[in-house]
Amino acid sequence: MDKRQNFTIQPIGLIHTPFTEVKNTPIQPFAAKGIRGWLDIDDEFTDGLVDVSGFSHITLLYLFHRITEHALRVVPFMDTVERGIFATKAPKRPNRLGISTVKLLGIIGNRVEIEEVDMLDGSPLIDIKPFYPRYDNRENVKIGWLEKNRDYPVEKMRADDRFSK
Amino acid sequence: MDKRQNFTIQPIGLIHTPFTEVKNTPIQPFAAKGIRGWLDIDDEFTDGLVDVSGFSHITLLYLFHRITEHALRVVPFMDTVERGIFATKAPKRPNRLGISTVKLLGIIGNRVEIEEVDMLDGSPLIDIKPFYPRYDNRENVKIGWLEKNRDYPVEKMRADDRFSK
Repeated sequence: MDKRQNFTIQPIGLIHTPFTEVKNTPIQPFAAKGIRGWLDIDDEFTDGLVDVSGFSHITLLYLFHRITEHALRVVPFMDTVERGIFATKAPKRPNRLGISTVKLLGIIGNRVEIEEVDMLDGSPLIDIKPFYPRYDNRENVKIGWLEKNRDYPVEKMRADDRFSK
Repeated sequence: MDKRQNFTIQPIGLIHTPFTEVKNTPIQPFAAKGIRGWLDIDDEFTDGLVDVSGFSHITLLYLFHRITEHALRVVPFMDTVERGIFATKAPKRPNRLGISTVKLLGIIGNRVEIEEVDMLDGSPLIDIKPFYPRYDNRENVKIGWLEKNRDYPVEKMRADDRFSK
């Protein structure tokens, strides 16, 4: 079996946010304090939400659905130099998948209320995982080219049009 | 456009680890201290690795390729009660995608040496993202049913056969 073979993803729902255009969307949940959205989970998958409400944070996996082709080098937000795509979280990447950990506010039926949303409205949702600091946090980390942005003002962390398709 | 439509993923390479069977693989990188593996990146994508070497930790997105069908409720590792799949990180999930943050040891050409590996040998690699604590860590988190496992001994965090397909 060729393990490199392509495979198919079936979205489990849609993400709804206030952001209908790329320009001025927050760069990362870190820059989206207080901004709310919700997940519309397809009926087929709603039963998988049992026990999720006990968690304060969930990690969402979703498709950057506006991206039409990837690049292997990009000039990331908050930078003026071209970087390898895998050294960035830019959306214009192979397989165009995004990962965002958001705050969970509540679940009613198939509707999951969330906060700290940084994705575009209508993004197809692929998976939800519980955030668990013992597994998911890392300390004593080297951050490469991002080091110079360590104190970048959060209020300026907004997208421009560079990755709009 | 129906944004819920299925889409195709093309792996960017393969993950190599010492683990050829599910049983006794570490549960999470947290339980895989000192265990090394490597990424074999396809030539088509190698140029995207530029600048990655400055980071000490990278987040890998990969396919749980042995899983043949998903479940919406599972009894997770370290538990005896059935939980909704989205309240767990169990592999038997819709779209069967895994996320693991590992230590980066070095990159030579298309070979990426890593440590703290918890995935099976031959897992198709989908994406690499740099780990950045300012964006990716969370504090003051509620962890639902996992609360009772807060002090679970790391040396006992090994898989059994329950999610072998």
